[in-house]
Amino acid sequence: MTDRNRRPAPTSLRVCAVDPGLTRCGIAVVDIASNRKAQLVDVTVVGSPGTEPIGKRLAVIDQAMDDLLDKYQPEHLAVERMFAQHNTPTVMGTAQASGVAIAAAARRNIPTALLTPSEVKAAVTGSGTADKKQVTAMVTRILGLTTSPKPADAADAIAIAIAHAWRGGLFGRGLDTGKLTSPARASKFAGATTDLTPAQKLWLAAERRTQ
Amino acid sequence: MTDRNRRPAPTSLRVCAVDPGLTRCGIAVVDIASNRKAQLVDVTVVGSPGTEPIGKRLAVIDQAMDDLLDKYQPEHLAVERMFAQHNTPTVMGTAQASGVAIAAAARRNIPTALLTPSEVKAAVTGSGTADKKQVTAMVTRILGLTTSPKPADAADAIAIAIAHAWRGGLFGRGLDTGKLTSPARASKFAGATTDLTPAQKLWLAAERRTQ
Repeated sequence: MTDRNRRPAPTSLRVCAVDPGLTRCGIAVVDIASNRKAQLVDVTVVGSPGTEPIGKRLAVIDQAMDDLLDKYQPEHLAVERMFAQHNTPTVMGTAQASGVAIAAAARRNIPTALLTPSEVKAAVTGSGTADKKQVTAMVTRILGLTTSPKPADAADAIAIAIAHAWRGGLFGRGLDTGKLTSPARASKFAGATTDLTPAQKLWLAAERRTQ
Repeated sequence: MTDRNRRPAPTSLRVCAVDPGLTRCGIAVVDIASNRKAQLVDVTVVGSPGTEPIGKRLAVIDQAMDDLLDKYQPEHLAVERMFAQHNTPTVMGTAQASGVAIAAAARRNIPTALLTPSEVKAAVTGSGTADKKQVTAMVTRILGLTTSPKPADAADAIAIAIAHAWRGGLFGRGLDTGKLTSPARASKFAGATTDLTPAQKLWLAAERRTQ
């Protein structure tokens, strides 16, 4: 591998993760190796004030996604799964922002994984009800950083990327392949443990021990 | 004007309107003249079943918008304004679809207008609580069609386009320019009646009589 920073090793997964929002949209790119080690490639927070028209606000996210996906060519996109019961005034704008991010990845045939906030918290802190401070602290420790990523939206995006890879993203598991009854998904699951490299088998075994 | 169907006359407005949804997304292109006459340019309903992954579902809408915006080069996009209190299971997907449509327009510097469902119904039927059947009947009459546009999503998209133009879209009014307190918006409103063509003045006068 002549340029380790451009493309991850075959047994690593490069994940772009998005903590969606119109005012602050966290976008992280993280390489996660099969031994679960995570390396931060880039992280940014983009957005615009509510005084801007919705088209311009979404265009900021669209452009940032285009730039980052072209630059780093991640294998997967991971985005927070949203629910209508998150009934805040900003929820519709947040959903629109997530749609723009997912479409930018889909234009490049990058599959999307959706994770609930509690899945992300549980994966990085061990507790699905951890607060933002705990998530930031664990992300800082996992990445071996000396200072915490800021603002919280940056740390959240990184946490989403790590959570996706750790729950089996390297094997395509956790990707949104439509409904569970889809034959394509069933066959993908059935074949998930075949044709694995030794490193992938080690990771899968390690994962199973932690579950 | 050598090619009337490609570009509307200067006193007309070409509006692309979207009734967003992942399963059925209505997209209409309508030319509305300053005498309020509306001419259907194109209408389509795109979408995909819920068994498809979210990325593919949004990509279908993204591609359809890219194709239609490039083909017809509308001056404005009009989209249904969504509220979080529309608390149905599909509301988040609908918001994601609207975000993708607005971003496609923003990439081409096409401004977006947001209209509430009751604004659209009131504009085309005179009642903000009209049902889908009434909206379809009025859209059919306004366009002078012999058969009704189907499915309802097609008629809804056409209604959004007409409602936007009729409420003053030709003069830039009704476009989402951010918050009402924005100085840019205030100056735009202040200058709305200056530099109008005779046809625009006639339309504005007709509008005022109907308000």
